[in-house]
Amino acid sequence: MMDTGRRSFMVSVAAAAAAAAPLMVGPTHEAVAQTNDPGGALKLLSFRLRDGAPPRVGVALADGTLVDLTAEAARSGKTLSFKPDDMVSLIAAGDTGLAEVRELVAQAAPGRVKLTEIIYLPPIPNPQRNIYAVGWNYLEHFAEGQAVRMTDTKYPEHPVFFTKGTHSINGPFDPIPFDPKVSTQIDWEGELAIVIGKRGRNIPEAEAMDYVFGYSVINDTTARDVQNARHGGQWFKGKSLDGHGPMGPWIVTKGAFDQDKLHLVTRVNGVVKQDASTGQMYFKVPRIIAELSLGQTLEPGDIIASGTPPGVGFARKPQEFLKPGDVMETEIVGIGTLRNEIKAVG
Amino acid sequence: MMDTGRRSFMVSVAAAAAAAAPLMVGPTHEAVAQTNDPGGALKLLSFRLRDGAPPRVGVALADGTLVDLTAEAARSGKTLSFKPDDMVSLIAAGDTGLAEVRELVAQAAPGRVKLTEIIYLPPIPNPQRNIYAVGWNYLEHFAEGQAVRMTDTKYPEHPVFFTKGTHSINGPFDPIPFDPKVSTQIDWEGELAIVIGKRGRNIPEAEAMDYVFGYSVINDTTARDVQNARHGGQWFKGKSLDGHGPMGPWIVTKGAFDQDKLHLVTRVNGVVKQDASTGQMYFKVPRIIAELSLGQTLEPGDIIASGTPPGVGFARKPQEFLKPGDVMETEIVGIGTLRNEIKAVG
Repeated sequence: MMDTGRRSFMVSVAAAAAAAAPLMVGPTHEAVAQTNDPGGALKLLSFRLRDGAPPRVGVALADGTLVDLTAEAARSGKTLSFKPDDMVSLIAAGDTGLAEVRELVAQAAPGRVKLTEIIYLPPIPNPQRNIYAVGWNYLEHFAEGQAVRMTDTKYPEHPVFFTKGTHSINGPFDPIPFDPKVSTQIDWEGELAIVIGKRGRNIPEAEAMDYVFGYSVINDTTARDVQNARHGGQWFKGKSLDGHGPMGPWIVTKGAFDQDKLHLVTRVNGVVKQDASTGQMYFKVPRIIAELSLGQTLEPGDIIASGTPPGVGFARKPQEFLKPGDVMETEIVGIGTLRNEIKAVG
Repeated sequence: MMDTGRRSFMVSVAAAAAAAAPLMVGPTHEAVAQTNDPGGALKLLSFRLRDGAPPRVGVALADGTLVDLTAEAARSGKTLSFKPDDMVSLIAAGDTGLAEVRELVAQAAPGRVKLTEIIYLPPIPNPQRNIYAVGWNYLEHFAEGQAVRMTDTKYPEHPVFFTKGTHSINGPFDPIPFDPKVSTQIDWEGELAIVIGKRGRNIPEAEAMDYVFGYSVINDTTARDVQNARHGGQWFKGKSLDGHGPMGPWIVTKGAFDQDKLHLVTRVNGVVKQDASTGQMYFKVPRIIAELSLGQTLEPGDIIASGTPPGVGFARKPQEFLKPGDVMETEIVGIGTLRNEIKAVG
């Protein structure tokens, strides 16, 4: 189970590493081209046209441009079922909203904005509640952690859930704050993000996929010293530092790919640190949704970070942590790449 | 340290128990009378005038009536610094907002609504992020838990933080859902809730009180089987079932009392289960805020459940859990009383 598809990754990892130029959005254009088939999935993003401008929602196209839904909605004059500058509102509008988006894209004005010219925001800039996160969802990651902790904890029979604070959310290309007064052990955790599309509680596993709106890339960046040593074993605080959850570059609506066959790679300064298939996830997406929603209502726009594969820094020998100037890249082939520089603040 | 002020509680506990009539809002009226001194603290609540009516914000008065701020704002025609039907907006408006509230109260129309005639909502009906919560903040509660867990965990040097999901928030007199498919070990945890009034990060302990807007009562109701057995030791899921966080009846703005000298009592079916002083809290309010805000921005309207004293059900011999029909009361003398019936759903 661990090595499913591992061999076939090697080629694309090498290609991706070669393509990892200092330009901010290089690899992401390739990702657009990979999945943006007509009538299929949409790549939805939140962005600003310039510093200080209000947030907008757009659709990234295969040609490296975007359709500015906020502008197109105003131009069309149509009454929409969602607020065209608010991703959560679009998500909550469900199939009706997506049909309207497709219509706006089809009728969009020529002369579109290039994806290289915008300021990317997290696809959901202001999450309405904490980001749900799954711990220990790749057996090898559980094992590498156990080796460090020297405990004999059994693998849990149910997914481990914790949350990341709302201010941990960060843009796909924004800096990750590094404050040595808070933590000197910032670690990477590349993950597939699940975006919920529909309200539900006690969602049966067999119906769980109906509640998925789409997927994105998230890095569940973690302050290990805070997570493991200071707060009695509860992970929340070490998972919740401001900006320690870059996400994006967009949400790919479901249907574009099989979420169990995604290739996930985390690189630090171009060196591959995590390299796995989402097929290695122990608890799959439907099980995660079923268990999380047990007695607890999920809402459109809710984000679930689905767990990280092996290769994190604190389990390495010697341990590795991020330091100012490092560049952390988190890629899921078919979705896109986050590229975040670690930046000292004080 | 454990017994500070315990003796003096006995009298008022007896009085409180005697006053625990089946009427929904009996004891809360006394609480209003205790603290609503002129020019001093305000008791701010969210409510509906009837089922299905929109939420409003009001001020509870010592005579058992309330000033309907939503109505008074409309009547006055004044431009306010906050939305008069939105508690978080009022909190965020700070001293300016509170001055406007006092003016509205002073000029309010006669013939006011009685507190017995409204439908109480949680003071902050839609929290903008998860409820922050502190674990093990009373040494005796840590000890009683250790006795059950049979571990030798050391008392943490820093507060233990976790979160409760936003849908756990519940009204002060609303039923607590009991679904045996989800949990059969629902337990009480009466706590002082801290409401943050001002945005801040890395808040120094010495300045932390400037960031407090006020206080309320919360019950960090917990599904013990979910918390302790199923999810790998992370508490979030067992703390986050829908409706498992009743709060209210109102927020008392700071200044009304010393938050370290509050008398906290939890009763089940009239029997006292928890009886403590907030003076027994190991990490005091300023320390909690300083530690929580380290590298993590707090916002106006954020809620912190500050930890529960000893006397919870799972640590009793034999263990006790809530069952449908039970009435859980959570009182902080000087603030008010929550009264929630456990109600089967499913």
